[in-house]
Amino acid sequence: MSAEVPTQHPCHAYRSLMERHRNVGRLAAIAEIISRDFLTAMPEGAYMNRLDQISYLHKRIHNDIVCCDAQRELEEAQDHVEAHGGLWDEWDRANLQGMVDIFRSHSIQTPETMEESARIANEGRRLHREVLKKGDWSAGVPHLKRVVDFTRKMAEKKAKWRGSATLYEALVQDYSPGLDLKTIWKWFNQLDRELLQMLPLVMERQSQRSKIVEMTGSFDPKAQMWLNRALIEMLGFDFDRGSLHETSHSPVEGGTPDDTRLVIKTADSSNFLDSLKSALHEGGHGLYTQGLPAKGEWAYQPVAQDLGTMMHESQALFVEMILGRTPEFFRFLAPRLEGLFHTIRDPALTAENLYRIKTNVRPTLNRRQADEVTYFFHIFLRFQIECDLIEGKIEVEDIPAYWTEWMHNKLGIMPQNHAEGVLQDVHWFVGKFGYFQSYTLGHMVAAQIFERMRTDIPQIFGKIERGDFRQVQYWLHKNIYSKGSLMPAEALLKDVTGYKASPDFLISHLENRYLSD
Amino acid sequence: MSAEVPTQHPCHAYRSLMERHRNVGRLAAIAEIISRDFLTAMPEGAYMNRLDQISYLHKRIHNDIVCCDAQRELEEAQDHVEAHGGLWDEWDRANLQGMVDIFRSHSIQTPETMEESARIANEGRRLHREVLKKGDWSAGVPHLKRVVDFTRKMAEKKAKWRGSATLYEALVQDYSPGLDLKTIWKWFNQLDRELLQMLPLVMERQSQRSKIVEMTGSFDPKAQMWLNRALIEMLGFDFDRGSLHETSHSPVEGGTPDDTRLVIKTADSSNFLDSLKSALHEGGHGLYTQGLPAKGEWAYQPVAQDLGTMMHESQALFVEMILGRTPEFFRFLAPRLEGLFHTIRDPALTAENLYRIKTNVRPTLNRRQADEVTYFFHIFLRFQIECDLIEGKIEVEDIPAYWTEWMHNKLGIMPQNHAEGVLQDVHWFVGKFGYFQSYTLGHMVAAQIFERMRTDIPQIFGKIERGDFRQVQYWLHKNIYSKGSLMPAEALLKDVTGYKASPDFLISHLENRYLSD
Repeated sequence: MSAEVPTQHPCHAYRSLMERHRNVGRLAAIAEIISRDFLTAMPEGAYMNRLDQISYLHKRIHNDIVCCDAQRELEEAQDHVEAHGGLWDEWDRANLQGMVDIFRSHSIQTPETMEESARIANEGRRLHREVLKKGDWSAGVPHLKRVVDFTRKMAEKKAKWRGSATLYEALVQDYSPGLDLKTIWKWFNQLDRELLQMLPLVMERQSQRSKIVEMTGSFDPKAQMWLNRALIEMLGFDFDRGSLHETSHSPVEGGTPDDTRLVIKTADSSNFLDSLKSALHEGGHGLYTQGLPAKGEWAYQPVAQDLGTMMHESQALFVEMILGRTPEFFRFLAPRLEGLFHTIRDPALTAENLYRIKTNVRPTLNRRQADEVTYFFHIFLRFQIECDLIEGKIEVEDIPAYWTEWMHNKLGIMPQNHAEGVLQDVHWFVGKFGYFQSYTLGHMVAAQIFERMRTDIPQIFGKIERGDFRQVQYWLHKNIYSKGSLMPAEALLKDVTGYKASPDFLISHLENRYLSD
Repeated sequence: MSAEVPTQHPCHAYRSLMERHRNVGRLAAIAEIISRDFLTAMPEGAYMNRLDQISYLHKRIHNDIVCCDAQRELEEAQDHVEAHGGLWDEWDRANLQGMVDIFRSHSIQTPETMEESARIANEGRRLHREVLKKGDWSAGVPHLKRVVDFTRKMAEKKAKWRGSATLYEALVQDYSPGLDLKTIWKWFNQLDRELLQMLPLVMERQSQRSKIVEMTGSFDPKAQMWLNRALIEMLGFDFDRGSLHETSHSPVEGGTPDDTRLVIKTADSSNFLDSLKSALHEGGHGLYTQGLPAKGEWAYQPVAQDLGTMMHESQALFVEMILGRTPEFFRFLAPRLEGLFHTIRDPALTAENLYRIKTNVRPTLNRRQADEVTYFFHIFLRFQIECDLIEGKIEVEDIPAYWTEWMHNKLGIMPQNHAEGVLQDVHWFVGKFGYFQSYTLGHMVAAQIFERMRTDIPQIFGKIERGDFRQVQYWLHKNIYSKGSLMPAEALLKDVTGYKASPDFLISHLENRYLSD
């Protein structure tokens, strides 16, 4: 009846570990479902008890992972690898390594910190919705202070265990395993330098063109959601194993390969591009999740998990920013929009105008509305704030002034209220310190992947214009999705593209798109 | 942060048991959420893994309940009651008794049977939807045989443990604790005798009236759902702690006091009365669930649970059949329907005609479409089949012939296909053998409660006609909902109405409504 793990691996301890991870994976999948439900179907009055339920489940998962049998089994399995290496293929080895990593990262935590962490994440998501609506920064401060305190304490344990150079590096490595902060600083400094030079050139160039036609129509939210679903389905998203929901919360991807729930903000009838952008972004995440190995013995195993947030964001940003902002994509889209929104010959909805709207480069206050050239600066700001905050150089109360001054110095603009500034992202509220860098690293990886893909797939732009994404999907599936965690992200990238990760690919992508057409 | 149990009870073992039940309750609440999600939001492709997840969770719950610490703590707590009786109030005593019952009923099962039972329930629900759609009885037989085998085995264990007179009695007692089969047979035989006499009298009486006007309009499903929600909200359902969904599956109530999810069949535009009926029925369940004690120390505790299916169905049938079929209810409803469905002066939608549609008595093939007088016979048929099936006097293959012959002999009608007959209910497919009797017992209890309520609430019919259900709700809350499992169902009924359970109240309710107006 049940999808039993069919492995016949000769190491008994490893078989038992696989069984353990299968069961942990089931509980983790359940946690995903109820967390998604929290954002979509849950009645508001269930909030407090749901928090309890989710955090209690995480505590149980933690206890299952760190129980003493697991430690003994891990030792036995590692001995088995040494003694009978020939019986362990690369998947089993990577899987065992994943088990060791998961065990260690949990061992330094207590069940109570796991519970508190889950609680912060879910409380914070709701609190953020409320304070963002009101623009009320001060109502968020006590929660953020609690999160920062908690995060610093966690970071101390993690830094000690990982031998990280700084507390913040320990957090970054949660999301981007194997990367050091020095390398990220080097890349970010290069991007800062080169993009600051590029920005005025692009803006100057774009200013010489005829004016962009602003959208003035009204766009039926239901029709928007049809479009969002249709596009991500064309991109390969399997609605038999996933869904796209609207929420009043911040967008979120998530789930498991067979129940991948994408959640985007409720569509706004004055602008279909925002909800489309969000659907493409979460859709990219969803494609990765659905493509992970999930059949037979690898279901729920560590080796079947994704490669962390750099790779996850690379898949989201590849779809949203790279593929979804090609002129060809808009040439495919434009005629269909006329039918969908009943707007024949709206000059705002031509392929050319839509392309220009989505590639219009100018400093903006909002990260999610940023263009591809200035997007990095939004990340760089948050990265620096996090760095100083976690190391104790600044406190939560200092963030708004820091933010405003930085934006002014870097981009010459300033938020007029907290909703435009420090309150715009949910990440800190849910305890995701160290995450933001993943967006820029992901953008870099997406550009690097795209360069390789263009060589591998003949006439890729023609295919995009025809809405034929099959080869793109095949390529991503074969090279990225199906590999799970067989090798670290950086090794996979080198393997697939022939090069180590570097900002050069992103810079040359931006030059191509923004300075050479 | 967390909603800690604030009890200061002096018995340490009991405090520990409360903590254990709080945690078991959290996992059970999670199981409710993902089972509800299974019926509403889950993508079809997640089916197999979801089955695994739900059944695995039930296995964990079982293990938490029967672990050896629990046994020791129960013994200690029972010793404490004997030694320091004065420290135990009636709630704590009932709670401890509930803990003992839960422990014992789980102790006779293995984790694997708990897992299998959850799997049967969820597989069966989906299979039933498929075979009902096609009317394909034979496609359901293998599953049903498996369920019957499994149920007989479970029944053997239960009968031994409970000292039940027969295997079937042991199953019935799962749903109606404390009742014996002999009593149910006695009640059912009385109902059979008296209702068979009443039926031709009622039909004769109704045949002398002018013809009922059939509904021919089209009723917007969205408007129907608004009505359904509005009515159960008026009845006291709190949408801040619950919701009403549509599903392609069979209707189901469920959830917890703070997340009560009612699921009814997708509304049909040719008939709003079916979906209304379903909403009132599930709404009655939901009101009971939401009204159970759930605050502070009693959250998730055994004493805070409902009194089993007889009482649960009594609450559903009270709203659906007793209150929801009064002439006054239709006088409240009728003018609002005109506005809602844009149908001024439709002769089918007058209060009088609607009342006559819903109180029209005649033999029907479908249980859920049965009138109040013949409803019992549908239950009696299933009850007898279950009895013979579990005792091995008939097998699954014999059911259709049994069914057809019984219906013909009793009501003079015969199903023309399996969808009209043996396939109409989901219960057997999900392993609910012993449940059906709860409907008739519930109907009896609902009538008995109503008789008392009419004495307690002055001008109750005038209040119903004005759509003022506040005192009805207050009465039910005070006398039923808020009592949780403080005393057994029969004792509560006697306490509230002054009489032991008896079919007399149902018979006199039916005589009043169908033979005296």
